[in-house]
Amino acid sequence: MRELLYGAAYYDEYMPYDRLEKDVAMMKKAGINTVRIAESTWSTCEPQEGVFDFSHVIRVMDAMEEAEINVIIGTPTYAVPTWMVKAYPDVLAETVKGRGIYGARQIMDITHPVYRYYAERVIRKLMEVSVHRKCVIGFQLDNETKYYGTAGKNVQLGFVKYLREKFHNDLDALNHEFGLDYWSNRINAWEDFPDVRGTINGSLGAEFEKYQRSLVEEFLGWQAAIVSEYKREDQFITHNLDFEWRGYSYGVQPDVNHFKCAKHLTMAGTDIYHPTQDHLSGAEIAFGGDLIRCLKNDNYLVLETEAQGYPGWTPYDGQLRLQAYSHLASGALGVMYWHWHSIHNSFETYWKGLLSHDMEENAVYKEACIIGSEFKKLSPVLSGFKKDNKVAIMVNNEALTALKWFGIEASAAGDNGIGYNDVVRWIYDALYKVNIECDIIWEESENIEKYQAIILPAMYTADEKILTRLKKYTAQGGTLIATFKTAFANENVKVYPDRQPHILNEVFGMYYQQFTFPENVTLTGFEGSEPEAETFMELLIPDGAEIISAYQHPNWKKYAAVTHHTYERGNAWYIGCMFEEHYLQQMLIKILAQSGINAAAPEKFPVIVREGINAKGEKIRFYLNYSWEEQRVEAADDFEVILGSADSTKREIHLSAWDVCIIKFDK
Amino acid sequence: MRELLYGAAYYDEYMPYDRLEKDVAMMKKAGINTVRIAESTWSTCEPQEGVFDFSHVIRVMDAMEEAEINVIIGTPTYAVPTWMVKAYPDVLAETVKGRGIYGARQIMDITHPVYRYYAERVIRKLMEVSVHRKCVIGFQLDNETKYYGTAGKNVQLGFVKYLREKFHNDLDALNHEFGLDYWSNRINAWEDFPDVRGTINGSLGAEFEKYQRSLVEEFLGWQAAIVSEYKREDQFITHNLDFEWRGYSYGVQPDVNHFKCAKHLTMAGTDIYHPTQDHLSGAEIAFGGDLIRCLKNDNYLVLETEAQGYPGWTPYDGQLRLQAYSHLASGALGVMYWHWHSIHNSFETYWKGLLSHDMEENAVYKEACIIGSEFKKLSPVLSGFKKDNKVAIMVNNEALTALKWFGIEASAAGDNGIGYNDVVRWIYDALYKVNIECDIIWEESENIEKYQAIILPAMYTADEKILTRLKKYTAQGGTLIATFKTAFANENVKVYPDRQPHILNEVFGMYYQQFTFPENVTLTGFEGSEPEAETFMELLIPDGAEIISAYQHPNWKKYAAVTHHTYERGNAWYIGCMFEEHYLQQMLIKILAQSGINAAAPEKFPVIVREGINAKGEKIRFYLNYSWEEQRVEAADDFEVILGSADSTKREIHLSAWDVCIIKFDK
Amino acid sequence: MRELLYGAAYYDEYMPYDRLEKDVAMMKKAGINTVRIAESTWSTCEPQEGVFDFSHVIRVMDAMEEAEINVIIGTPTYAVPTWMVKAYPDVLAETVKGRGIYGARQIMDITHPVYRYYAERVIRKLMEVSVHRKCVIGFQLDNETKYYGTAGKNVQLGFVKYLREKFHNDLDALNHEFGLDYWSNRINAWEDFPDVRGTINGSLGAEFEKYQRSLVEEFLGWQAAIVSEYKREDQFITHNLDFEWRGYSYGVQPDVNHFKCAKHLTMAGTDIYHPTQDHLSGAEIAFGGDLIRCLKNDNYLVLETEAQGYPGWTPYDGQLRLQAYSHLASGALGVMYWHWHSIHNSFETYWKGLLSHDMEENAVYKEACIIGSEFKKLSPVLSGFKKDNKVAIMVNNEALTALKWFGIEASAAGDNGIGYNDVVRWIYDALYKVNIECDIIWEESENIEKYQAIILPAMYTADEKILTRLKKYTAQGGTLIATFKTAFANENVKVYPDRQPHILNEVFGMYYQQFTFPENVTLTGFEGSEPEAETFMELLIPDGAEIISAYQHPNWKKYAAVTHHTYERGNAWYIGCMFEEHYLQQMLIKILAQSGINAAAPEKFPVIVREGINAKGEKIRFYLNYSWEEQRVEAADDFEVILGSADSTKREIHLSAWDVCIIKFDK
Repeated sequence: MRELLYGAAYYDEYMPYDRLEKDVAMMKKAGINTVRIAESTWSTCEPQEGVFDFSHVIRVMDAMEEAEINVIIGTPTYAVPTWMVKAYPDVLAETVKGRGIYGARQIMDITHPVYRYYAERVIRKLMEVSVHRKCVIGFQLDNETKYYGTAGKNVQLGFVKYLREKFHNDLDALNHEFGLDYWSNRINAWEDFPDVRGTINGSLGAEFEKYQRSLVEEFLGWQAAIVSEYKREDQFITHNLDFEWRGYSYGVQPDVNHFKCAKHLTMAGTDIYHPTQDHLSGAEIAFGGDLIRCLKNDNYLVLETEAQGYPGWTPYDGQLRLQAYSHLASGALGVMYWHWHSIHNSFETYWKGLLSHDMEENAVYKEACIIGSEFKKLSPVLSGFKKDNKVAIMVNNEALTALKWFGIEASAAGDNGIGYNDVVRWIYDALYKVNIECDIIWEESENIEKYQAIILPAMYTADEKILTRLKKYTAQGGTLIATFKTAFANENVKVYPDRQPHILNEVFGMYYQQFTFPENVTLTGFEGSEPEAETFMELLIPDGAEIISAYQHPNWKKYAAVTHHTYERGNAWYIGCMFEEHYLQQMLIKILAQSGINAAAPEKFPVIVREGINAKGEKIRFYLNYSWEEQRVEAADDFEVILGSADSTKREIHLSAWDVCIIKFDK
Repeated sequence: MRELLYGAAYYDEYMPYDRLEKDVAMMKKAGINTVRIAESTWSTCEPQEGVFDFSHVIRVMDAMEEAEINVIIGTPTYAVPTWMVKAYPDVLAETVKGRGIYGARQIMDITHPVYRYYAERVIRKLMEVSVHRKCVIGFQLDNETKYYGTAGKNVQLGFVKYLREKFHNDLDALNHEFGLDYWSNRINAWEDFPDVRGTINGSLGAEFEKYQRSLVEEFLGWQAAIVSEYKREDQFITHNLDFEWRGYSYGVQPDVNHFKCAKHLTMAGTDIYHPTQDHLSGAEIAFGGDLIRCLKNDNYLVLETEAQGYPGWTPYDGQLRLQAYSHLASGALGVMYWHWHSIHNSFETYWKGLLSHDMEENAVYKEACIIGSEFKKLSPVLSGFKKDNKVAIMVNNEALTALKWFGIEASAAGDNGIGYNDVVRWIYDALYKVNIECDIIWEESENIEKYQAIILPAMYTADEKILTRLKKYTAQGGTLIATFKTAFANENVKVYPDRQPHILNEVFGMYYQQFTFPENVTLTGFEGSEPEAETFMELLIPDGAEIISAYQHPNWKKYAAVTHHTYERGNAWYIGCMFEEHYLQQMLIKILAQSGINAAAPEKFPVIVREGINAKGEKIRFYLNYSWEEQRVEAADDFEVILGSADSTKREIHLSAWDVCIIKFDK
Repeated sequence: MRELLYGAAYYDEYMPYDRLEKDVAMMKKAGINTVRIAESTWSTCEPQEGVFDFSHVIRVMDAMEEAEINVIIGTPTYAVPTWMVKAYPDVLAETVKGRGIYGARQIMDITHPVYRYYAERVIRKLMEVSVHRKCVIGFQLDNETKYYGTAGKNVQLGFVKYLREKFHNDLDALNHEFGLDYWSNRINAWEDFPDVRGTINGSLGAEFEKYQRSLVEEFLGWQAAIVSEYKREDQFITHNLDFEWRGYSYGVQPDVNHFKCAKHLTMAGTDIYHPTQDHLSGAEIAFGGDLIRCLKNDNYLVLETEAQGYPGWTPYDGQLRLQAYSHLASGALGVMYWHWHSIHNSFETYWKGLLSHDMEENAVYKEACIIGSEFKKLSPVLSGFKKDNKVAIMVNNEALTALKWFGIEASAAGDNGIGYNDVVRWIYDALYKVNIECDIIWEESENIEKYQAIILPAMYTADEKILTRLKKYTAQGGTLIATFKTAFANENVKVYPDRQPHILNEVFGMYYQQFTFPENVTLTGFEGSEPEAETFMELLIPDGAEIISAYQHPNWKKYAAVTHHTYERGNAWYIGCMFEEHYLQQMLIKILAQSGINAAAPEKFPVIVREGINAKGEKIRFYLNYSWEEQRVEAADDFEVILGSADSTKREIHLSAWDVCIIKFDK
């Protein structure tokens, strides 16, 4: 891309009255240079089976082309028209709750041939009317695709065939690996394969979820192949990958393997939503960005993020702008809002766009005008902005699924239980807040050896291949850090029947046989304070390792909580329990410093410092102030001010409330 | 009615042994002059299809007639006999959860022809045995009728036909008004109309609920027509309209349009249940009474209220009597308990009647004896008791439904969200506690212009006709008060695409484009204190209005919270956020005083003062003490004591704990 | 049994690799002399319909026989193989939620002929391979059998036939007893009998649950008869009866009548799970033991209890041993763990055995070695250990069921409601903590007159026969103590229509007509303190009784809370409300002392003292320290030390943290 993209999803279809001319004028005024259209409008594009009407799409392309605004075309397949469901009711996915009722989006069976037949046809028709248009810079496949719990007979049949292949037709192997003898679940003939929706076997259940995730990969690959038949070389194929949703974008997406899906895209894309007002921390923007950027080791599209969002997120003055630069600081090619205007009916009436329902200028729109104008100016200097991080966090869909089956409980009641992403975010947020940038990598990532340190948060399932690779990585001088619940089970969620953590116990110089929930347990080894052990604790028995922290408790005092071990040329730290993130920050600073990894700057949250190298090889640094408090920060080296209020002669950065400053180092 | 009714529901059918003679004697001793019978006893009246046995009904009428006790006959249609369901299983309503299983009451499809056929026959048979009896003073149609979620194919077919008519067969109009293009929900052929139970479109969903409410109106009209064929002119037709249930009668009934249903009745009736003991405030009795009285602008029947009720409501000494007079003070024609005796089996074993399970005299029965005797004495003076209130609250089923779809959340988690009735009760209770009496009116009410002030609590949906009418009302000198969430969407739950509040922004001299959930926001403009903004806040931009209260918060301080505007000859107040009711009381006193409306008396809750004019044109005033504390109150004018302990020479009212006093002014 | 059993469930089938030889060696080292096998392994024993493979069973028996370890054979019927469900899907129980999906154990219809046919065959085949083996000491029928909600057409048909017989074909009697006239539920022809799963009638619903419980009795009787055809005289038949599950074994089992089921066993058996660490109190071990022991008035098997259990229960040093002796102190014949090794897959991966997943020696295994060695030594002295308790608590499945329908609520919201077992445990725990041992008896127990005191906790339903018997028991000198909610309804859950408590009001010299939930109510009559009334309070009216405690509250002060009455030669106490258990301890000590019943020792929890007589007639006393605090305790008489640290010359017992001491008195 030559310029930073600034844009919004635009729905001519949803307008209460003809607004196109007025909207284009307002967009131009705001510096908006991209709109995303067509996604989710199947019932408008194909009002009856085989009857096509792309007039909304065409008229918007016409208007945008004239206004020199880029268009991204979304295939409209994530919500099916009533005529399809009325004629073929079983295109709706059959889940563990039975078959759904028409209404919501994303409730069809993405493997169903009827759905595929119609989806393919509408995609081809849409490509025919849009692909040749100058304004069209790329295509988004579907929208936040998942498998929607699809588990009908057809899907289960596919799963059994998949297992036959995986286990080379050997039922004994399957029964053994999954431990199906337990509770008489053993399957002694393929014909007896039971309805998997009722299984209580975590290995079988997790394998089925993995299979369901593979359906998403296959589906996006199938759409990508269709679009590729048409698209020009300069047009990209993307998809808006999203995250575990906890009312906002929280962590690794449970239902999609991002790494595998990204193989089908020419450019990674994402949707990121997050709290604002006093709760805006930038952590979700940074986490999402670091994860998506690493999928293709390249810049990425933010296809959706909130403008006003839902009522609790109405931004304070300055926050929309701070958010925009936070995305750029992670390597985004720009920012696109969901969506231009607030909708006047239906489910997301209160998920507000840049314009409120009155569609007049408002406080947020006025701030967008400033951002648009700045983006235009900054495009040359920020072009080709890349990172070179020393630390990587390794993530893993399978560990997430397994920990849904075998949760990290906090108490007998289980009501304070936490999941995989809680541990991922515990690690990520601690690094983020002390300004140590990191990449997010996968077992399948190439060249993981390039990192100085790799962190494994709760990597519960891991096959021997990756464990051996990590062992070798450490032996050769790498720094390996793992938390509790790492390397406990194999890729089939079968607990390793020897010392935990499997294979790595040698690397960490310790093992454990028992674990429990902490009650009135504090930790030694933290200067001036005794943090409480929280949620879960493993009772570590050092076997060569030094004790960094031990439990303080009448019964558990003989066990270690955190250990350090020098393993051949490398270093290995194991964190056996959870504790307040604040103490983890301290610990990670110390651990990483020992491996020669230090933060970009001494500041800590709420001042966030993120940096990289632009196309010209210049080091660019963002200062982001996530607070009401004015900040004054000193830079160690000479710099040039790109944006914001800084005194380069005094090497001083000034940040007002929710403010941003960008500087450039020459050397 | 010549005399105040004092009574109870009576079920000879449920008795563990023959009690009729004993019960009649105990009733006479207690001054009970009315019983309500037959309701809910279909399986006893018609033990097998076409076999009728009204012996319980007849023997009770015989006994009551002899004892000179009035009888109200309830049609027994709200619980169906097993023989009907066994033969025709689909008389049970099919809801969003599928078809029900026999057991509970109120689970049939009230539109089903099988049900209607049998219901009509049993009603006609019951009329034949009862209508000519001297003791029978009126009929109650069914019981707390609703639509029970009925949404089977027949009902949905009726709904589609209703929509065809409403939109004059124009699908484009329907799609546009309901915004069905969104998420591909557009319907392009009537044949494609999807199962409405799954809809995520709030406009379509709310319209369906409105249609379902219309089934209740049609059903009661149908029963009323049958009963009218038989009834004598002196016999009334009533129905026990009830309220949103939150463990007690809370607010406007979501599933029934009371105003429309009341057209089918000759006398309004109601069921009111409420907390007692330290939580008895009289607010539910007053709210329910004010709402039901206004349906026909006349006195009304309290067909059910608790005697002992469920275990948490066992009344303190004096409370049963205080409750009885609270009903009269709202304009009730008397009080009837549900029910005479506590039942020895089944679902409501712990919903206790006047008699406990031992059916002996007890503390509550003894208090009833006092009430019965007083009612007899007071009948002449309280006859024809009417109100002439200056203030009206306008309520609206459609706003309630719409706010179920688009709730007033309090936080991101949505867990403290409030509904329409929370706002209605916030306004109502504030008036109640400062002794400003009000009527409760509907959009369709005649002569709403007669009020000096109209208050609109969260009237989220409103068509342009009523908004224009309210605008004119204010222009001509009326006082209009509205809360947040008023006039935001039209009658099809489509948000108005211009300045909010639609049409009324001119009247209020302000508009708003944004809103959020308050966090650490306080309000200016309250003497000596700074209340917190709660739950929801609109960011008001004055455009002619004066600021009565503004937000105190670093970001929101530029917006108003409460505004006042002089609009032509009238006055308009807009309350943009919620805050503690205590401060609303202060505010409403001030606002209404400016329109010349003052409380009947300077006392406030727990001393409640309610008044009206009797048939002779005398002003009657009730003093009600909802507390343990003894109260001494002065009246401004000379009076005569009707009931209770007062010193008319000193103009002093004495109220002991949970006590009542009634006085009469001559002028 | 000649020796104390020490053992574990052993699953050769679940092993990740061949471990048998290694496991036997580790067992021998730990003193384990018993394993329980085969239970739950149907799919391994009968991999295809009619194909049997008992090789796992045989090889384990071979190994154990050689090692002189006893084997208990469990019939494998509580989890069905996939082939059965695939061929006959309706063997899965149809419950109120519909038919289940294959996966979990215990979801079949235990009455289904297909299930019975296959179950019988596999049991017979298993008997044939195991019954003649020397090592096999007994058989366990099925596992924790319940009825799994089975309520399909076949079951409901059986229920109707059962009712026809119970009511001698008289529908009027049924309608009257169950109060079915209410809400038109009256059944006027047997053909009209509705689907009972939807009933709202607590009498009908409770009767159905009772019928469902009878299916469990019939099922166990049927299995017992099959096993009896084969078993040697020296082999026992047992079953692992369990308890209401609240995350641990809490109270009377709602779904099984233990008393009736025990008739089919030659030896009672049980599964007991409980909290540990700081929450280990011994109360569940004692409660479960006292209940199970009394079923056959004999020693019993602890077939399952936790070794490590779930992560929150990882035991402190000493706790496994303390638990083992706690079981013996109740009369157990030994202790068997569930299970030997932690499982590497499926549902109970985190329900850990003696061995952790690494299957090496660990802290818990090492403690087991101590226990095993001590058990061996103690076997002679503890042989034939029996109790002779003076106090009995009477329990009742029907009261439990009825109180599920008519709960003991604590507030209007009902969210703090308690159930039957809360009251049972309130009474039991108070006795336990003051070291007054008790038996747990049933209405059907023989010779209940032998007790000096009988306590009735919330015996809500009671027929006139038992009430009359208890009246006579008191008249003849017994001490009767009852709590609120006793004798309120008859055996058909029909509230008695006269003075409550029915029949017993004469015995207690008081009655009541009203009850409520206490709010700010305290109690008189406790020295130096005023406990709060909690949860529920009956307003007692003394009629001959003396007031032991009265309510302090402006309205309730005229009523009694606790009364005492001398009834003929006996004494009767009635406790009308709940209050903190601590005060109940005080009260029970006082009440029972008046009947000449005193604690075995003056100590109180956390020092628990339990005693009995061994086969030689010697008095054996256990001292158990459930705390971190070291305890020094004096015994009143001379004793001999059997186990632990005591100074018999000074008559002083020393208990370190979580320690046990056993002494023997000669006289």
